[in-house]
Amino acid sequence: MSRRVVVIGGGAGGPSTAAEASRRDPSLSITMIEQGEYVSYAACSMPYYIGDLIKDESKLIARTPEKFREGGVDVRTGVQAEGVDLKDQVVTLVGGETLPFDVLVLATGARPILPGIPGEDLEGVFTLKQLPDAIGIKKYLREIKCRKAIIVGAGFIGMEMCEAFVDAGVETTMVNMGKMPVPRWDPELGQLILESLKSHRIKLLAETKSLAIEKGGSCNLRLITNNGHFEADLILLAIGVRPSVGLAGEMGLVLGRTGAISVNLSQRTSHPSVYAVGDCCEAFHRVSKQWTNVPLGDIANKQGRVAGQNLAGFPSIFPGIVGAQAFKLFDLEIAATGLDEREAIAAGYSPVSTLIWGEVVPLSLPGETRLGLKLLADKSTGLLLGAQAVGPHGAVSRINTLSAALWSGLPVEEVGYLDLAYAPPFSRAWDLIHIAAQDLMKEMG
Amino acid sequence: MSRRVVVIGGGAGGPSTAAEASRRDPSLSITMIEQGEYVSYAACSMPYYIGDLIKDESKLIARTPEKFREGGVDVRTGVQAEGVDLKDQVVTLVGGETLPFDVLVLATGARPILPGIPGEDLEGVFTLKQLPDAIGIKKYLREIKCRKAIIVGAGFIGMEMCEAFVDAGVETTMVNMGKMPVPRWDPELGQLILESLKSHRIKLLAETKSLAIEKGGSCNLRLITNNGHFEADLILLAIGVRPSVGLAGEMGLVLGRTGAISVNLSQRTSHPSVYAVGDCCEAFHRVSKQWTNVPLGDIANKQGRVAGQNLAGFPSIFPGIVGAQAFKLFDLEIAATGLDEREAIAAGYSPVSTLIWGEVVPLSLPGETRLGLKLLADKSTGLLLGAQAVGPHGAVSRINTLSAALWSGLPVEEVGYLDLAYAPPFSRAWDLIHIAAQDLMKEMG
Repeated sequence: MSRRVVVIGGGAGGPSTAAEASRRDPSLSITMIEQGEYVSYAACSMPYYIGDLIKDESKLIARTPEKFREGGVDVRTGVQAEGVDLKDQVVTLVGGETLPFDVLVLATGARPILPGIPGEDLEGVFTLKQLPDAIGIKKYLREIKCRKAIIVGAGFIGMEMCEAFVDAGVETTMVNMGKMPVPRWDPELGQLILESLKSHRIKLLAETKSLAIEKGGSCNLRLITNNGHFEADLILLAIGVRPSVGLAGEMGLVLGRTGAISVNLSQRTSHPSVYAVGDCCEAFHRVSKQWTNVPLGDIANKQGRVAGQNLAGFPSIFPGIVGAQAFKLFDLEIAATGLDEREAIAAGYSPVSTLIWGEVVPLSLPGETRLGLKLLADKSTGLLLGAQAVGPHGAVSRINTLSAALWSGLPVEEVGYLDLAYAPPFSRAWDLIHIAAQDLMKEMG
Repeated sequence: MSRRVVVIGGGAGGPSTAAEASRRDPSLSITMIEQGEYVSYAACSMPYYIGDLIKDESKLIARTPEKFREGGVDVRTGVQAEGVDLKDQVVTLVGGETLPFDVLVLATGARPILPGIPGEDLEGVFTLKQLPDAIGIKKYLREIKCRKAIIVGAGFIGMEMCEAFVDAGVETTMVNMGKMPVPRWDPELGQLILESLKSHRIKLLAETKSLAIEKGGSCNLRLITNNGHFEADLILLAIGVRPSVGLAGEMGLVLGRTGAISVNLSQRTSHPSVYAVGDCCEAFHRVSKQWTNVPLGDIANKQGRVAGQNLAGFPSIFPGIVGAQAFKLFDLEIAATGLDEREAIAAGYSPVSTLIWGEVVPLSLPGETRLGLKLLADKSTGLLLGAQAVGPHGAVSRINTLSAALWSGLPVEEVGYLDLAYAPPFSRAWDLIHIAAQDLMKEMG
């Protein structure tokens, strides 16, 4: 009899696992269950779908259930797992049906954190994590009359969504508990973000705590905060996500310090028949040397590929992450990698940093633009620890180059002499990477 | 008495050495001599000056002689070294003057290779290596009547110059000995280059040998080739450069296999009092593990900084190169790093490769563009050996990321899982780097 694989969760990591496993070993009997209606979609593109750069939700689907079935993977949507019996190796579905397995893959994802305030369940209050959320928001946006939205939270999803709302012609206010948005980035770099929000007429209320949501007067809803009341037809709660580990917890799987499912490099959990991939599990951070939980789609895809290979009998490891991340905000590229000061100290390093501003290309050429680049290094070892960049062009490119440097544990001294492809239309002979690294060397003395 | 440093050559490496040395040790007595009129200029930007994107040659000057003098460096232009007496540590200038030194820095650069054909010294025949060449070409372009130019050679300088000529409104023909231009790039990628040249109405004559230049009829000059005669007012000879090592040879310094001056990691030559930097010397290639001669301005700058630190008493090494290179051709980014097949075999590797085409950003977003990416790896070790990319966007960015990977000697398997900053406006969840690396893993079996 062929080995039976059950995959719980159809967002990104689950489909990636199922696709890779079926490709590697067509004899596997693979069933993927998903409680929602959709599987295998590009969740990271949802803001662009809402902003209508992507017209149709079908464009977000990487692989349809039919396509999976052609590849020998049985996809069942609208089906929820109620419990897992690890001794008998059986998944029990809501409704009583059972799915026996030889190998189980948990790809249960993450769910939005709710502020826990009165009225957060009112109509017009949304979170954004799964495709139906996006479809719901887009549909609702077409109907609302007062064309006003409030985003609670100023993380990167909040940022992408405020651009989407502006694209959709909606007046947007952001309400943020912290002083600065996206605190991963240095406040000096955050200044560019504030200016961009301002120039697009987005109001950002800093150090503002949301207290309640109630029915509105001129608009459908009213948000009550410690800084006043604000009306809007749509309120998006975007204060973060946490891993969905209810099932894993009930199964007695080991959870890590982050609260996500603990896995090893081959994506195996504490139980030898159970793998976990994606937002619900941890990933090894190559710079902090700690297991972290970073809920990003590209990581889920990679972990799924590794799990799929392993369960199909092709040994493989996921070599970990360095914390590379980027988002676009109107005309700005905002990117970071590695650790920030707080994370570096938590990992045991002694961070020193530098932050420089410069033109990406030589001053004498047209199209010049100022990029801010911050580098962090460890004072005791001279190792590069992290980088942050914000600017109209070249931020992501530089962060990716520095991510490859972090991946290998390069000392800042070598980063100062990295051999990069230089031509005047693309960079200066001493790229900002070199200038920042050499500046940081001076800081380290 | 303060230590006397004489720097011969004022292009890029020499000024970089002098500036760094004077900054590190203001007590040094530094003299920099340059046979031409200009020092410290951005030679790589000369095509953009000729194409008039940069209006004024003063914009190419990084640091004027006056600025150097303020920093304590005595700059003497129009002065040529005739010989060096290493025993007495004296440079003799043309005209008889002598400059004693404690430390000598050779930054004698490279000179254009001439085809050695009749008429190559006629008026209107140019090479492009130094700033006066660029000034001469720009001046001449304003005067010619038939608005036609021929470029002999289709390397990256020839490519940048054909864009410059088109920008200057000059009809341009390229004459190339080889079948394809810029043979470092795979012919499949070269196809994009051919299409770009064609769409800008640049005629490229392949497998064509230039035999002679003579006075023309309708234009000033006529190029005689084995493929016919072609008239133009301007002929640019751009078939490459070779290191200027006459002085070094006479001094008895060791030259490397490349014909350039042999140096160690601190830029010291075979004589303990003599450093060499820039196009005239070799650099350690971290992938081939061989000493190479790569005449590029960014390398010269870095070597100069290292030499300047060492001669000022601050020990420093130049950690080498990986062969990163880029140029722009109209709307194309063309970039490469590491080794190509021929170089890989010469270094002792067993190269396998893959070449993929794909959209840089998700298909469902606007602005999509096809990028071609080739990766090479060593079959025996699985190490990444090189990469080439051509496309309207994202080629340089990816080559820089891969340069950092090559720098550290990453295996292709890890490149397939590199943590890169992903967001839909910038890349796909599986970047082309990942797809190519995973594809190459399959090739390697």
